[in-house]
Amino acid sequence: MSTDLLTTLSKTLLMGPGPSCVPDQVYSALAKDTIGHLDSRFIAIMDEIKKRLQTLLQTQNKLTIPISGTGSAGMETCFVNLIEAGDPVLILKNGVFGMRMVDLAERLRADVDVLEFEWGTPVIVDAVKKKLAQKFYKILAVVHAETSTGVMNPVEEISRLLEGSNSLFLVDCVTSLGGIPVKTDEWKVDAIYSGTQKCLSCPPGLAPVSFSDRAITAVKARKTKIPNWYLDLTMIINYWGGATRAYHHTAPINMLYGLYAALGVILDEGLDKVYARHKAAHDYLVAGLGSLGLSMTVTPESRLPMLNSVNIPDGVNDVAIRTALIKDHDIEIGAGLGPLAGKIWRIGLMGHTARTENVDRLIATLKTLL
Amino acid sequence: MSTDLLTTLSKTLLMGPGPSCVPDQVYSALAKDTIGHLDSRFIAIMDEIKKRLQTLLQTQNKLTIPISGTGSAGMETCFVNLIEAGDPVLILKNGVFGMRMVDLAERLRADVDVLEFEWGTPVIVDAVKKKLAQKFYKILAVVHAETSTGVMNPVEEISRLLEGSNSLFLVDCVTSLGGIPVKTDEWKVDAIYSGTQKCLSCPPGLAPVSFSDRAITAVKARKTKIPNWYLDLTMIINYWGGATRAYHHTAPINMLYGLYAALGVILDEGLDKVYARHKAAHDYLVAGLGSLGLSMTVTPESRLPMLNSVNIPDGVNDVAIRTALIKDHDIEIGAGLGPLAGKIWRIGLMGHTARTENVDRLIATLKTLL
Repeated sequence: MSTDLLTTLSKTLLMGPGPSCVPDQVYSALAKDTIGHLDSRFIAIMDEIKKRLQTLLQTQNKLTIPISGTGSAGMETCFVNLIEAGDPVLILKNGVFGMRMVDLAERLRADVDVLEFEWGTPVIVDAVKKKLAQKFYKILAVVHAETSTGVMNPVEEISRLLEGSNSLFLVDCVTSLGGIPVKTDEWKVDAIYSGTQKCLSCPPGLAPVSFSDRAITAVKARKTKIPNWYLDLTMIINYWGGATRAYHHTAPINMLYGLYAALGVILDEGLDKVYARHKAAHDYLVAGLGSLGLSMTVTPESRLPMLNSVNIPDGVNDVAIRTALIKDHDIEIGAGLGPLAGKIWRIGLMGHTARTENVDRLIATLKTLL
Repeated sequence: MSTDLLTTLSKTLLMGPGPSCVPDQVYSALAKDTIGHLDSRFIAIMDEIKKRLQTLLQTQNKLTIPISGTGSAGMETCFVNLIEAGDPVLILKNGVFGMRMVDLAERLRADVDVLEFEWGTPVIVDAVKKKLAQKFYKILAVVHAETSTGVMNPVEEISRLLEGSNSLFLVDCVTSLGGIPVKTDEWKVDAIYSGTQKCLSCPPGLAPVSFSDRAITAVKARKTKIPNWYLDLTMIINYWGGATRAYHHTAPINMLYGLYAALGVILDEGLDKVYARHKAAHDYLVAGLGSLGLSMTVTPESRLPMLNSVNIPDGVNDVAIRTALIKDHDIEIGAGLGPLAGKIWRIGLMGHTARTENVDRLIATLKTLL
């Protein structure tokens, strides 16, 4: 009785926008014996997670830790620690996650300006440049990999616009981290967050975040208390760093075992090889889709390797195809969101999923269904 | 290399304030294949989790779901959804978690009044009655089982003070749920939260919450948006209920498998038997500690069975004993917090840990160390 429904689960090929397929080492880690959250053996694992995240995020930031929530809790952490009521914030929006940033910043009573770009196209750097020339923003925020559209935004070019500025640069790397390079320090990113269920190939539940020293200074200079106890980094860092390891909230111990293992699997393979594998699987997918007469939504120079938006051909039933894929073939792909609902499919090649054999299986199956 | 540190883990006897020992069925569930968060098989598991939580919480509340964060995220959820700036809130404080409620409510700019009681003693109902007679409070908040002291607060008696009132009753049952009866509907509780790593014996990472219809009406009547995107129940309920199952954030899938199994284990045993097992283990522990000449911090009528505060005898080195227990005997007990630091130990008998054989092992070990 107690666990009947777990027998319905299967090794689904997860080719949606996340979660992605999980390696056996990560499953095994999740099931390891729970120990105390202040146990020295657990603290050693926490310290190693911080180091591994620094490597993946290409940063020396001391404040580089996983937040005890999913990717959206990472977004909330970055905004709620940095924003005070009335702070001017500029958000670059070309998809669901830019839209979510706007909603979140407005709830925190920021003075939010939005630069919107067509969904499925990247942020136009010149437009940002003009906007920045008109007004000082405390924070400029952008999504690196827009999971809702498959667009890669030009984070490096945008970062150059902030040279010599006092604005803080806030970047969402939920879908990019572990699939394409994320150069936190080189791009002078001040606050960045990710999620575990995309290219890290760990189940959802944790949100890596990293804050620059400049961002920490801004948090410490706040006039008002952070309006969120659970995500208050000034307290969380006393548990994740420092000599005393002061209790804040009980860390999600087994999820952290999983993240530790997932990061280990990636670093064992090597970052360059991991990125190359994503690129190869992506190229192979685009070719395969082309052979079926399907076209990509995003232009080649802005395509993400790990999230591939495909135009649904006229006369093809979106829901029927996705339902057949999952029910009859145990393959999950993603639906379109917002203005792209019903118009595109989102095919994920994230982390452990990003392999040509998985592409073969999808293309062969789609061929029978279309 | 990638998973080396996991080999340092062991089947530690977790007799601290949480996490507690985890049954094998739960570990096994955590490692089950990840599927999509909108997959119909996963939605069936979500629906069953809701039902099981309703049974444990003794409630018909439709909005009874696990929040994607640890117990403190449950506290944050209850407060942030209900409080608007200036709202009068009365918090009954006799330990760390009452103190945390005050901090949290103040961050949300509530008009917070605090009734404080000595740590290690329960809330005095008459004092609450007097306070309620002086002023209308939108929310009255209390901790059922104060994990920091081992005190059970008289929630049922306090609830009677609110009969016929428009105040909302907010209760923390993080440590009580699954160890002693929590009668959400009978006590007319409007918002209640718990955590998974105490008497539910699931690893930390989720926070069951339940809102009455009256509380939902209050949320819907807000004049201002909930200043927290991640924990906004008006959006979360569209994923956990309703026909569309609209995506909000990606649910922590494998943690939810674990919770599903943990609740199943409890219901398979039967709630009455589970409560009786906690009581028996507690009585056995008190007797065992007495045989070693150790005394309890809390008077018998206010003692929690699952969290036992013990006075550290004069001349005994707190840290040395706890270190020997964990390093040499793989038994974890908890330290005192706040004004009770160095003065008490906190011995947990939570969920799967609450067994007389575990008490035997602890008492025999303490005997050799004292």
